[in-house]
Amino acid sequence: MPVAQKKTHPSALTENDGIEQPEIISASSVAQIQSFRKKIPTADDLVNGILAGDKTALSRAITLVESTSAAHLEKANDVIKACLPHANKSVRIGITGVPGVGKSTFIEVFGTFLTNLGKKVAVLAVDPSSSISHGSILGDKTRMEELVRNENAFIRPSASGESLGGVARKTRESIILCEACGFDTILIETVGVGQSETAVHSMVDFFLLLNLAGAGDELQGIKRGIMEMADAIVINKADGDNIKRARLAKTEYNRALHLFPMKNSGWSPKVTTCSALANEGIEEVWQTISDYFSLTRANGYFDKKRNEQNQYWLLETINEQLKTNFYNHPEIQKLLEENKKAVQNSEISPFAAARHLLDLYQNNTKD
Amino acid sequence: MPVAQKKTHPSALTENDGIEQPEIISASSVAQIQSFRKKIPTADDLVNGILAGDKTALSRAITLVESTSAAHLEKANDVIKACLPHANKSVRIGITGVPGVGKSTFIEVFGTFLTNLGKKVAVLAVDPSSSISHGSILGDKTRMEELVRNENAFIRPSASGESLGGVARKTRESIILCEACGFDTILIETVGVGQSETAVHSMVDFFLLLNLAGAGDELQGIKRGIMEMADAIVINKADGDNIKRARLAKTEYNRALHLFPMKNSGWSPKVTTCSALANEGIEEVWQTISDYFSLTRANGYFDKKRNEQNQYWLLETINEQLKTNFYNHPEIQKLLEENKKAVQNSEISPFAAARHLLDLYQNNTKD
Repeated sequence: MPVAQKKTHPSALTENDGIEQPEIISASSVAQIQSFRKKIPTADDLVNGILAGDKTALSRAITLVESTSAAHLEKANDVIKACLPHANKSVRIGITGVPGVGKSTFIEVFGTFLTNLGKKVAVLAVDPSSSISHGSILGDKTRMEELVRNENAFIRPSASGESLGGVARKTRESIILCEACGFDTILIETVGVGQSETAVHSMVDFFLLLNLAGAGDELQGIKRGIMEMADAIVINKADGDNIKRARLAKTEYNRALHLFPMKNSGWSPKVTTCSALANEGIEEVWQTISDYFSLTRANGYFDKKRNEQNQYWLLETINEQLKTNFYNHPEIQKLLEENKKAVQNSEISPFAAARHLLDLYQNNTKD
Repeated sequence: MPVAQKKTHPSALTENDGIEQPEIISASSVAQIQSFRKKIPTADDLVNGILAGDKTALSRAITLVESTSAAHLEKANDVIKACLPHANKSVRIGITGVPGVGKSTFIEVFGTFLTNLGKKVAVLAVDPSSSISHGSILGDKTRMEELVRNENAFIRPSASGESLGGVARKTRESIILCEACGFDTILIETVGVGQSETAVHSMVDFFLLLNLAGAGDELQGIKRGIMEMADAIVINKADGDNIKRARLAKTEYNRALHLFPMKNSGWSPKVTTCSALANEGIEEVWQTISDYFSLTRANGYFDKKRNEQNQYWLLETINEQLKTNFYNHPEIQKLLEENKKAVQNSEISPFAAARHLLDLYQNNTKD
């Protein structure tokens, strides 16, 4: 094996050279993987692959989007730009709920239901602690195992990143790539705590809140802001002994939703119950979402909201980057702490300290 | 009158030269005003005046703070810096409520009550539409007329400014000047709509919400965020036929407040009723506020909050100014609209457009 001997890390695909291949290994698949591995695809290669519906090309392009290297960023921009005219033809659905509510099982069952309807489903996530980034996909595979193997589904864990803003940007750019790849239903998972819902709410057409029956008053208090964003509340685990409580919760949530001001979409949020485990109530969830899209496509809100989201991300990206540039400036990092202390000791007003740092920054970036 | 003839706009104070002065005009007051008018006071003059408790010097310094001229800004900074060590020794109370709730009457009565306790009361405002900026002080004088003439009170209308951030900054710097001038109780009025409460909440120690009995469910929905910030809710106009309804409202608000999460201050918000017009319930309001200060001074929250507010204003000022510098840049103003349209037409992703504008900005500011 002269070829393999030259390499320090021989590939498992070449190590079998000269050994009879077991029938289970497809020679054409091996050839395809080998050929793909040989070269780094150009932006054009990736675009062509994505537009042809190739999930490997899609994955590689998303990896570029997630990269922090400047060269990758430029290439990613080229790919996204070429994909943009082919994007936008999907429905984007945000799914949130606190840990333990059964998000993974729901997405598994709901995603499979959608592919059975002939849809192509991409599942993305915005959250470093998201269930699809924590083991279920890459690790123990006890959840979403059916959807992972479904050829009409594409599942991608949450991008890792220092800031929510960064993760959100990467996910939103990935949506464009998934759409260009022919995925017509995008599910964005996020955990029902903190700020990530707001970010997801700004990138989806429909926002679904998964809840459980019998969550206490305090929990409901925390989730009030999220409830206000929801287009539908689905009470999961409505099975067995839980059915009666789930129906009661449905009535309660319906009452609570009436206290919120009318939505700009003209849509009244709906509450349904389901059991992802028992595969019950899933069709009703989809019916609710379909009704929403019929209404908002007819009244123009669908396009209006997407355009507003685009403008939001334009300005939000600028504002975030302006801050990043400032606070990551080495000179500023050094002096900010000093000024914080001076402010605390009433040696300087917060406004004078701010002006001082801004002047310094402006002079420094001029050099 | 050779002197007056030289001037195109003779002063009313000099026009009476040679005419017998009516007894009601104090010769020493005229001399004082004339001497003050003759020269523009230096920063030192203003600081000395402020520290001596001179309200005219305080007024002039606040005018400097409110000015948009760069020279005034520098002078204002010098004054503030010299006043800072003498500031901070007050209680700062935010008062909000929708128009019609009786804020002006309440502040008039409450302020007078406080001066009768021997306190020195400054009333500032954060809102272009604030009642104290709209005629009541400068114009019709039908409201707060007693407090205006009270020598232990100082009333200043809201600064005018393009942005809430600008108005808020000016008010917060004015607080420092008022405190250095010996005012130990600062009342900050704001209108109970929009974002101004959040700004005021970030500069006061105690936040008081004035409400009316019988406000509808919808109105309560809008004010939920403000209710959450309130340390006390005072139901005003609890007089005549309204007393019973006010008591009912008190019970309702008390119930509603229990739904909010516990405050970091360890304080449970209180609900009281009052009639500013009949001067009833005012002492109870002050008792509530005093109880709050006893608690938060003892548990350290008072100082902790003030320090957090200082840090907040430091970062907030930087973040706002970074945006102002960017969006007011002539080149950016021109190109932002073009890029917004390109994003809307899916010619460019919002992120690529943002990067494009940021690169351009960075290159432009380097020149």
